[in-house]
Amino acid sequence: MRRTLLVVPAAAALAVVTMGLASAQPVSTNPAATPTLRTMDISLAQADAVIAAARAKAAELNTKMDIAVVDAGANLKAFSRMDGAWLGSIDISMKKARTARFFDMATGEIGKLSQPGGPLYNIEHSNGGLITFPGGVPLKTADGTIIGAIGVSGSTVENDHTVAAAGAAAIK
Amino acid sequence: MRRTLLVVPAAAALAVVTMGLASAQPVSTNPAATPTLRTMDISLAQADAVIAAARAKAAELNTKMDIAVVDAGANLKAFSRMDGAWLGSIDISMKKARTARFFDMATGEIGKLSQPGGPLYNIEHSNGGLITFPGGVPLKTADGTIIGAIGVSGSTVENDHTVAAAGAAAIK
Amino acid sequence: MRRTLLVVPAAAALAVVTMGLASAQPVSTNPAATPTLRTMDISLAQADAVIAAARAKAAELNTKMDIAVVDAGANLKAFSRMDGAWLGSIDISMKKARTARFFDMATGEIGKLSQPGGPLYNIEHSNGGLITFPGGVPLKTADGTIIGAIGVSGSTVENDHTVAAAGAAAIK
Amino acid sequence: MRRTLLVVPAAAALAVVTMGLASAQPVSTNPAATPTLRTMDISLAQADAVIAAARAKAAELNTKMDIAVVDAGANLKAFSRMDGAWLGSIDISMKKARTARFFDMATGEIGKLSQPGGPLYNIEHSNGGLITFPGGVPLKTADGTIIGAIGVSGSTVENDHTVAAAGAAAIK
Repeated sequence: MRRTLLVVPAAAALAVVTMGLASAQPVSTNPAATPTLRTMDISLAQADAVIAAARAKAAELNTKMDIAVVDAGANLKAFSRMDGAWLGSIDISMKKARTARFFDMATGEIGKLSQPGGPLYNIEHSNGGLITFPGGVPLKTADGTIIGAIGVSGSTVENDHTVAAAGAAAIK
Repeated sequence: MRRTLLVVPAAAALAVVTMGLASAQPVSTNPAATPTLRTMDISLAQADAVIAAARAKAAELNTKMDIAVVDAGANLKAFSRMDGAWLGSIDISMKKARTARFFDMATGEIGKLSQPGGPLYNIEHSNGGLITFPGGVPLKTADGTIIGAIGVSGSTVENDHTVAAAGAAAIK
Repeated sequence: MRRTLLVVPAAAALAVVTMGLASAQPVSTNPAATPTLRTMDISLAQADAVIAAARAKAAELNTKMDIAVVDAGANLKAFSRMDGAWLGSIDISMKKARTARFFDMATGEIGKLSQPGGPLYNIEHSNGGLITFPGGVPLKTADGTIIGAIGVSGSTVENDHTVAAAGAAAIK
Repeated sequence: MRRTLLVVPAAAALAVVTMGLASAQPVSTNPAATPTLRTMDISLAQADAVIAAARAKAAELNTKMDIAVVDAGANLKAFSRMDGAWLGSIDISMKKARTARFFDMATGEIGKLSQPGGPLYNIEHSNGGLITFPGGVPLKTADGTIIGAIGVSGSTVENDHTVAAAGAAAIK
């Protein structure tokens, strides 16, 4: 069976490696070897700090929030539901966090494109359900590597985004 | 299980009334009126304490755990995934917590009854999937009122249960 | 497995092209017999070529894509996710490929009809979720028989469609 | 709001960091800073090599296989269905790959524990469906870091496992 897939030039493949699922550098220095990607991921200590910062901001705004943090693979890392926060926001906060990591951008940005007549109309039907209004924000290290995402739901979308951004700011 | 919710002292019940979804004393003194249940529910501060206790026990056992806490309504309240803990245990820890609250008993007890030939054979097919091996434990106040449940997954079922029990002990 | 699919004369195949789910000519010359359909389907070697062409075009455009190929039965045949490509595009690329084969047209064509007020409004709710913006293209043999579809996601819908078309061009 | 979660000793947290979602070393050398995990992930070039090796072994055994590769986050990276391979094995191969990464072990090992009377009875009901018979194998670098998993389905479970192991051996 021919390996047509391997005809992609190695240089092109390497050029693509420089962004994405965590910063990616070939591990091997042997050009004949197949490289493993070097990536980064959020730690639980970081996720704790993100949720603490989001809860503090939510309290400051006198809101009650559901707050979810996912890792670089979009898998749940930590979650808190403040007393009295909406039950329906459990799933929404998780979907916002996943959506932000799925596309490496704030959820509200996707929502601008998924309106009727927009280029991504009804993208929300994919991935078991996306949430594309504000409240989901990627989590980035100081050098810009995305290591996860936070999703917040429980108030206005403006408040949700403000709280998510406050949580994201806890990552240095 | 009998209505353990009704043994809650009125004073304790009143103290909780302002906080939410919870336990059961008739509000009205008018026998003609339809009584509303007074219930009790776990607070986020309690859930934090449960998860902190579980994480400390997991570290003590040199294990890496996924830990979920649900409230009296079996809805997710808090979650932590320790660094390096199994990805497949995210869902299992949540299902253990829900299963424990769904039936107000430790998950391992249900598993004894769901074996081939047993009275609850394949009960795991209900509720979008139950987990009936050890690691899920109800969360009870000092007087026995169930206010939620904890589910732990990431090691042997014995360790999972030990860590869940340590978390549950944080509720006084 | 015998390749009965390939014994269909080209002329017969052409006669049927307008009808869709594989070509349909009675096998039997006995008018009393129930005819079996002779169909055509994409081979894995063809799917490899489609994906290699799409990956080459994606690299040329400096994009990172998720690329899915489905067969004549709309079942997944091959898939590649380029390093750093969006996680959310795994499902979208598959849904684009299926959608293109489900209706034997480019996904963007369906999207024109599924807008509010349009004749296929919210068709995305069917089939476990459709994606109806550009990036899905049917795969056709030289004589126009549809043998599968490609779905691409990871950049603008214009780039997605360009890469999908480049992949489709690999089928001769 | 008290940060009870942060009372976990830093030393304990760091001790946990050394295994898991790719090898994990704190990025920061400042003990006061919250560390980001350094992880590793499979590249598409590696996934191509894994699938090529599995296809070659499948052909050698005169079998027709569905072959799936997931990354460190258990998200699909690459997939091939050989001509004539079972349609039902598309989902099974993916579930085997995910299951192997979910628990960082060969799927058959889990199946030994999930039998009636076993400690993990009916674990298959979690995670949207697990497959716990042989055919799923973690993908490890030379130093033992798990960077993904392969799942194979289409023949006997013995053949499925043999082909998966041949694919896994392509990672050096």
